[in-house]
Amino acid sequence: MPKKTLFIIALSSAASILIAPISQAASFPVDPVHNTLDPDSPFATLYLPANAPDRQDQVGPTEWTHAYGSPTHNAAFPVSAKAPNWIRQGVRWNFPEARAWPLADNHPYGEKVYGLKEALPVQTQFYGNALGVSVVRGVVYAESDDSFAYAINAKTGKLIWRSSPVANTLMGNPLVIGNHVYLSAGSVSFNFANVVAFKNNPKSAARGKDISYNGIFCLNRKNGQLLWSFKTVGDAMPTPAYNDGSLFISTGDGNIDRIDATNGKEIWKTHVGGIANMSSPAVWHHRVYVSMSVIPYLYSLNEKTGAVLWKGTIPGAVNTGMGDVSPAVTDGVVVMDSVADPKEVHGQATLQTIVRAFRAQTGQVLWTDRLGRGPKIPAFKGGVPMIHGNIVYVGTPVTSSYSAINLHTGKVLWTWHVPNPGPAGAGRGAPTFYQGNLYISTGPDIYTLDASNGKLLHKYHVGGRFGIVNPTIVGGTIYLGNSWDWVNAVPVRDVNPNFHAA
Amino acid sequence: MPKKTLFIIALSSAASILIAPISQAASFPVDPVHNTLDPDSPFATLYLPANAPDRQDQVGPTEWTHAYGSPTHNAAFPVSAKAPNWIRQGVRWNFPEARAWPLADNHPYGEKVYGLKEALPVQTQFYGNALGVSVVRGVVYAESDDSFAYAINAKTGKLIWRSSPVANTLMGNPLVIGNHVYLSAGSVSFNFANVVAFKNNPKSAARGKDISYNGIFCLNRKNGQLLWSFKTVGDAMPTPAYNDGSLFISTGDGNIDRIDATNGKEIWKTHVGGIANMSSPAVWHHRVYVSMSVIPYLYSLNEKTGAVLWKGTIPGAVNTGMGDVSPAVTDGVVVMDSVADPKEVHGQATLQTIVRAFRAQTGQVLWTDRLGRGPKIPAFKGGVPMIHGNIVYVGTPVTSSYSAINLHTGKVLWTWHVPNPGPAGAGRGAPTFYQGNLYISTGPDIYTLDASNGKLLHKYHVGGRFGIVNPTIVGGTIYLGNSWDWVNAVPVRDVNPNFHAA
Repeated sequence: MPKKTLFIIALSSAASILIAPISQAASFPVDPVHNTLDPDSPFATLYLPANAPDRQDQVGPTEWTHAYGSPTHNAAFPVSAKAPNWIRQGVRWNFPEARAWPLADNHPYGEKVYGLKEALPVQTQFYGNALGVSVVRGVVYAESDDSFAYAINAKTGKLIWRSSPVANTLMGNPLVIGNHVYLSAGSVSFNFANVVAFKNNPKSAARGKDISYNGIFCLNRKNGQLLWSFKTVGDAMPTPAYNDGSLFISTGDGNIDRIDATNGKEIWKTHVGGIANMSSPAVWHHRVYVSMSVIPYLYSLNEKTGAVLWKGTIPGAVNTGMGDVSPAVTDGVVVMDSVADPKEVHGQATLQTIVRAFRAQTGQVLWTDRLGRGPKIPAFKGGVPMIHGNIVYVGTPVTSSYSAINLHTGKVLWTWHVPNPGPAGAGRGAPTFYQGNLYISTGPDIYTLDASNGKLLHKYHVGGRFGIVNPTIVGGTIYLGNSWDWVNAVPVRDVNPNFHAA
Repeated sequence: MPKKTLFIIALSSAASILIAPISQAASFPVDPVHNTLDPDSPFATLYLPANAPDRQDQVGPTEWTHAYGSPTHNAAFPVSAKAPNWIRQGVRWNFPEARAWPLADNHPYGEKVYGLKEALPVQTQFYGNALGVSVVRGVVYAESDDSFAYAINAKTGKLIWRSSPVANTLMGNPLVIGNHVYLSAGSVSFNFANVVAFKNNPKSAARGKDISYNGIFCLNRKNGQLLWSFKTVGDAMPTPAYNDGSLFISTGDGNIDRIDATNGKEIWKTHVGGIANMSSPAVWHHRVYVSMSVIPYLYSLNEKTGAVLWKGTIPGAVNTGMGDVSPAVTDGVVVMDSVADPKEVHGQATLQTIVRAFRAQTGQVLWTDRLGRGPKIPAFKGGVPMIHGNIVYVGTPVTSSYSAINLHTGKVLWTWHVPNPGPAGAGRGAPTFYQGNLYISTGPDIYTLDASNGKLLHKYHVGGRFGIVNPTIVGGTIYLGNSWDWVNAVPVRDVNPNFHAA
């Protein structure tokens, strides 16, 4: 594309003439929250109002309050038969984010030095999108480890805005409430002081502390401009939960915070200890449910006061096990899983995945399932549980399989093994239940299963790699981010030939 | 600047129309080294050939082979009386990098949550330029933690190119040899697996392992395009050294590598253990001198074979002490310093700085100086030594002072205390000796001392904060990066009213 390249350079050249006068005037406002970066900066907020959806295309969910869409983690949003044709029938596009890696390239960047098994999670954690996307009123919102958040027209795949309020990885679902978009920033990293702190006392270490800037960043939903930030000492990697005008935040230094969603003011803070790796809180019936690593507990807190009402655990949970997974809650039951019981088998490190259900009111253990032992795999080792009806659907990368479990009895109804898991294991992302079928994005593929018996109906190849990505289904389209730094729209009919549009 | 903002948006909007066809064609080459990002990506290499210096302005050093300019770390480059007027008299400009923070703002981004003392080094390590800049043939080259490398016209301050070959922090001096620019990428971070590894056996942990991508990145000097990369398992944060057609690299997993500078092929690898935090190797008379943390040694290696010829240490060096500082070498003497002997004094954690000289040939200890005890300060705790004539000039942020020491006897000739050190301490960057004076960039200021007696001659306020920055002086200009993500050119005459141009 030589012509295009010349075009871009010419534009940038024209713009750069203005750099000198700007810097000498030093006209940046000094308030950090309202600091406007040099408009020539690659990190400056880019806003393309012409790409925003027309009024009639502002369809789909009206807000996004939790990671994976709701406390049940089922990101399925049917539309009515009166909705526009494009959203009922489905659209297809692939949007390359800032560090987009060729979708057709099976080899992640670091494969030659780390090997494929380790290079896959590195690409998830430092280049692409770790989680799936949020969709609200015809716009797809994505957080990427390229340090940008994106708002993309759900119909056209065109960029509406791109914003990078902080030099830190963004690994969540953007929450979208009213005119606000909320991002959560944090990294998987410890600096040396916290490495030493962990050695001396594992309970004293804080993930993300003194590593770049952690916290919650509130953007203007329309144009991506930063409105305010709530900074945290440890990382705030997990997506917060929204309820009753507040955000509930879990951090790498063992805190659970409630802040006012309108202005970021702290309402309460409860220090429970441990590290919230990727475990987003869930709010259900005015209780906050959240789990932590290192000090491995699931907590139930009073939404109003922050008081801990009960705590539960999973026996033998490994260090990062309980902090990786977000609990799913519905119908008076909290479902949580963790990798546990590390053991050498024939000289190989192995783990098993344990799923446990607690009574939401009291913390009483309802049932405990062991989903099987398998080799130790890198990075995020759990599966995000999803509940639909009376059934829990949950994967585990330890055995690269998904199971359906009765929510009230713990009876395993069926188990399905991912056919092409790869060396890092598959089964991290929550499935999505939609019109009787289960949609699963893992490895480079999307699968459709019959939810009633776990039989594979169809497989669709996207390319790249899905990290902890759940398919977000709105009408006739599946929206997904991936570790190759793309946001993809795939028509449901391509993944399920029997799909009938509304 | 409403007019300008509209202008930028209009340009970007025009460019973005091309996003969809590009992504659908998926025409990215699959070779990682030659992967061309979407030209609309903020990380795409930006090349503005019109801003390159004219032939007569390609003055100053002809190559840049070591961190801080040479094995002595004295980055002073006089020009002849026939050089162009601008370089003899000096120029002034301030170039804002991608995450430029207002120079007039004394408050770094994270001050409210971390406090000023910790927020200052965080800004150095994750936002701005940790080290000073390289200057070759009329171009200033800078690495920033904003993940970009920059080539800036030394006369005009205009951007020639900007490149971001990897999503990792860049904390060195770019090396510039022939048509190549070499960057070194790595971070200060450990992932959880290495936190646990350090707990079980401190010698087994690798900094930067499985944290983004580490290694050496070779760019085309003219346009900033990536030519090849040499990937390392641990971080390659320190700037390598160049000699005899090779690069010498120290890494966060305890390796010292020699690679071919033309193609990145490995020639030898010596595993010594420990962690090279910021300690760049120095090559002198076909020996490689490099120091490591955790297993605290200074090594002398045979340049040709990689064999360790001797190793020395500093008694009581703390974990990160010896790996932070780059040894300075000249005249058969290697000078190294480290913080050592942590001790509580009146309930406060304290350290002292020890400087030690070794015979380059044998490792025999020539002398050991204690520069005094002071409070424990965050992050990089050493001072980079510089040697000019028979004198070592070295600072220490522990006491926020600089000393002049006889290279052969260890006699301290004078000590000067930084008047405005700030809570994180001052004295990390190497001084620059130029025409009888010493130039020091520390805190937000540049100081001129009489090198013969340490008397302060003048102080010049730049703003922001200098991390481990040495002033790079070419003719009549001082070039410096800083933690606020700016590259600055300051006329020497402004920092020293008695300066006489060539």
